[in-house]
Amino acid sequence: MTQTDIQIAQAATLNKIQDIALKVGLTDEQIEPYGHYKAKLTMDALKSLETKEDGKLILVTAINPTPAGEGKSTVTIGLADALSRLGKQTMIALREPSLGPTMGIKGGAAGGGHAQVVPMEDINLHFTGDMHAITTANNALSAFIDNHLHHGNELEIDTRRILWKRVVDLNDRSLRHVNVGLGGPMQGVPREDGFDITVASEIMAILCLAKDLKDLKNRLANILIGYTAKKKPIFVRDLEVEGALTLLLKEALKPNLVQTLEHTPAIVHGGPFANIAHGCNSILATQTALKLADYTVTEAGFGADLGAEKFLDIKVPQLGKAPNAIVVVATIRALKMHGGIPLKALNDENPVAVAEGFANLKKHIFNMKAYGIPVVVAINAFVSDTEAEIDIVKEYCEAIHVPVALTEVWEKGAAGGFLLAEKVITAIEAEETHSFTPLYDVAELSVPEKINKIVKNIYGGRQANFTKKALNQIKTIEENGWEKLPICMAKTQYSLSDDPHSLGAPTGFDVTIRELVPKLGAGFIVALTGDVMTMPGLPKYPAALKMDVGENGEAIGLF
Amino acid sequence: MTQTDIQIAQAATLNKIQDIALKVGLTDEQIEPYGHYKAKLTMDALKSLETKEDGKLILVTAINPTPAGEGKSTVTIGLADALSRLGKQTMIALREPSLGPTMGIKGGAAGGGHAQVVPMEDINLHFTGDMHAITTANNALSAFIDNHLHHGNELEIDTRRILWKRVVDLNDRSLRHVNVGLGGPMQGVPREDGFDITVASEIMAILCLAKDLKDLKNRLANILIGYTAKKKPIFVRDLEVEGALTLLLKEALKPNLVQTLEHTPAIVHGGPFANIAHGCNSILATQTALKLADYTVTEAGFGADLGAEKFLDIKVPQLGKAPNAIVVVATIRALKMHGGIPLKALNDENPVAVAEGFANLKKHIFNMKAYGIPVVVAINAFVSDTEAEIDIVKEYCEAIHVPVALTEVWEKGAAGGFLLAEKVITAIEAEETHSFTPLYDVAELSVPEKINKIVKNIYGGRQANFTKKALNQIKTIEENGWEKLPICMAKTQYSLSDDPHSLGAPTGFDVTIRELVPKLGAGFIVALTGDVMTMPGLPKYPAALKMDVGENGEAIGLF
Repeated sequence: MTQTDIQIAQAATLNKIQDIALKVGLTDEQIEPYGHYKAKLTMDALKSLETKEDGKLILVTAINPTPAGEGKSTVTIGLADALSRLGKQTMIALREPSLGPTMGIKGGAAGGGHAQVVPMEDINLHFTGDMHAITTANNALSAFIDNHLHHGNELEIDTRRILWKRVVDLNDRSLRHVNVGLGGPMQGVPREDGFDITVASEIMAILCLAKDLKDLKNRLANILIGYTAKKKPIFVRDLEVEGALTLLLKEALKPNLVQTLEHTPAIVHGGPFANIAHGCNSILATQTALKLADYTVTEAGFGADLGAEKFLDIKVPQLGKAPNAIVVVATIRALKMHGGIPLKALNDENPVAVAEGFANLKKHIFNMKAYGIPVVVAINAFVSDTEAEIDIVKEYCEAIHVPVALTEVWEKGAAGGFLLAEKVITAIEAEETHSFTPLYDVAELSVPEKINKIVKNIYGGRQANFTKKALNQIKTIEENGWEKLPICMAKTQYSLSDDPHSLGAPTGFDVTIRELVPKLGAGFIVALTGDVMTMPGLPKYPAALKMDVGENGEAIGLF
Repeated sequence: MTQTDIQIAQAATLNKIQDIALKVGLTDEQIEPYGHYKAKLTMDALKSLETKEDGKLILVTAINPTPAGEGKSTVTIGLADALSRLGKQTMIALREPSLGPTMGIKGGAAGGGHAQVVPMEDINLHFTGDMHAITTANNALSAFIDNHLHHGNELEIDTRRILWKRVVDLNDRSLRHVNVGLGGPMQGVPREDGFDITVASEIMAILCLAKDLKDLKNRLANILIGYTAKKKPIFVRDLEVEGALTLLLKEALKPNLVQTLEHTPAIVHGGPFANIAHGCNSILATQTALKLADYTVTEAGFGADLGAEKFLDIKVPQLGKAPNAIVVVATIRALKMHGGIPLKALNDENPVAVAEGFANLKKHIFNMKAYGIPVVVAINAFVSDTEAEIDIVKEYCEAIHVPVALTEVWEKGAAGGFLLAEKVITAIEAEETHSFTPLYDVAELSVPEKINKIVKNIYGGRQANFTKKALNQIKTIEENGWEKLPICMAKTQYSLSDDPHSLGAPTGFDVTIRELVPKLGAGFIVALTGDVMTMPGLPKYPAALKMDVGENGEAIGLF
């Protein structure tokens, strides 16, 4: 019988975190242990690395996924384990999972099978408390705002124009729309509010983009919390609480060190939403891994049209380092879906549908290559795949001169990733002279121009259309001088277009920009297409129903 | 210039937590470090202690306090440091502070001056994440309840009769009364709700009374979350989520080890409200300290009428061990207040007022003695005290044959507590034969009889009166067979009566019981007198305004 992820994880023998740290040259004094198998790196340790040279960066992304996901994290981990076993000093930089989906549907998110980061149950539960610190800072700001309203509202904040929402790290649909401040004059000022899930908080995005404590504080100070009735913007700095918020976040800013099942050091830190935020682990995590290892493997959320685009256009300029190679993960199942096969028939052999669906993969490959970065395709193996189907993908990739490798890391760990690792090394070594070309000039182009660039070049669409609301918001953005920021697109992950049902590589479509939200602390402008879910709900029978604690205190029901 | 608490704490040299653990015989494998100066004890470590004999238990309580507090925690820490220095193997068991008041008014709560537990800034901020785990478990339960309503409400929970509220660990008055589930049929079921501060969560009380993981799960299963329209009670076990809640709390249940400024090992774990809950640190903390040390010093919240009464009538039966001595902390300032002097004149010398106010201290002394436990009075020194005022207290204590000691631990650390330590040791050794007498028989007396016993014997009142609502609730409690539980009184801490302005030792008063709330997971019935604040608000200028992070990442603005 196949073992579940948690069974594999709990059966593993972990190395002490001090030994993992030592593998990349970190001493006991440079880490702060959280139990025996997790640690935070000290800010002093990070500072001591500043002058070191960066290693190679490998970005793992994917085609537009099926609802089950294509296994990006699993491939990231398996690839890193394979690189390690091939003698390369390797580290992983990954996002940390949110509790909400864990209790709801997913039951856990730290890779899968024999390619996992561990201790899996800690990472999936409270880990080192980063999510809770972000929740607390986010909600402290809400409390400060409402307290300001209650004590006379000197700043004249318009209660109808407050942008800042509360958060919980849970799937809780009943908190999407709430009224607060009810109960009379001693209980605050009544107003409409709502809760997002913690990973959707701008503070999460800020934590993931901050270079150090000072930068963190600056970014917090710049958060736009709302407007007065006369449309004057109000910032956190007007409330003078950026110091308190920084204090609440000072431990959360330190990157977390764990290990894979095969003892490759992994930094798991930060986890912003990939729709209304940029969807990658923290700058500090990636930067630290780059300094400590020769090869750093990291991932971006959703498909390459969202996650990788934002990685390259939002994160890379902050990081000051572009990927040396991009791995695009595809599965036979997803290719069949893009070839027109319904979800329930994806397990049936159908090489023709795979060939049809290749258009989606091809578009992502060309998109990534346009940034000037070599691409390697990873076919992440599933039990239902057939040789004929896999051969089609290999053949099509070879036809467009893109290296491709079948990965079986879920089943075999590092051993299932050697082929991919070798192709990635070859790609990096062959392309020493490649140079990164950003998609757009962030300072020269207007907001609509930048959005159109993404819609045309990345999505393959005709143009972006703007609602009246969006046009008004662009006016506000330009009047306030906020237009020189990159764009963070919030779009369905299931299609290259803004229609989740439009699969393959659609063309001739327009994308409607419904709303624009300036995230001035994070430093980007969110462009919303369609309805974007920032607070998931629980299913009728949530994963929580199967959760428990065993006789020896071990977690049951994470999977 | 006098140093602030945080200056003293940050200047201190701490011992590695492994060395502190070793002091009481705990090995590296029996603790899980959180950084270098905090740790959790493993459940295996606790199990290995089960057969060890208990040491002596010293409970620190106080007279009815001034709004500034009488320094119970400071005396607890200073007394323990003094006992250590006198060669006694000593441990401390204390509550962990809540973030809400820290950001609001207090700026910190881990003792004061030269009698502090450290690392003070960690303890006051996120510590080891216990509060966040409780917040998460509490709100996960709320999400499960609302999700049940959304998906058809099979249990027929009456949305108007849901007792379970959400929590945040912040002072946030705007969340006291909220409407949730707004926005249409896809956004949950609209209903009234409210947020308490985390320390007021029944889950906090449960964590503090649970003996082990199994007991924790049982108690969680027994939480009463509300009623159907036909008044059928609905429990957590009906939702089948006690396993998931236990999973969220499994790390939080492990006691936290830290140290005092003088390196006495201290377990700081759990911190339930002292009004709607029982107000003491966890059973596991106290029990572990009792096993590891010859002397354990612990405290109870508020004055002896609330905190000590609940310690003795709620906690002791669960702990299976009564205190060997009780220290009642008094300050000259508070005695003057009880002698009729207004707050702003408390710094002026007034021995007559001290003599007048002694009635309050005397009542508490007699109350504690009635439990069969020796009492020692600690006069916690303040700069404004005069010799004449202190002499009055000493004279009056001697007249009723109660040992008394001036403590100067805030200023001098252990050295300021030797006298108190010696008197406590003498009291314990002299009273080897004392036997604990509970105030009431929890199984034999009815709910009104138990409440009357507390009102008459402890408060010195005439009787308890019950509102119509309370009488109806007693009926519900009796019909459901929940009446064999102890009573948890929620009353003002400022007076022995239910009127905060009635100082000294009032008599002839009645106490009105407004409402009764069965907390079936915690295992007590809360009796509410007057309005009890379960969610504080922030002042116009909260402590947060002065908070910041320094150049080297150190906390600024905790005090």
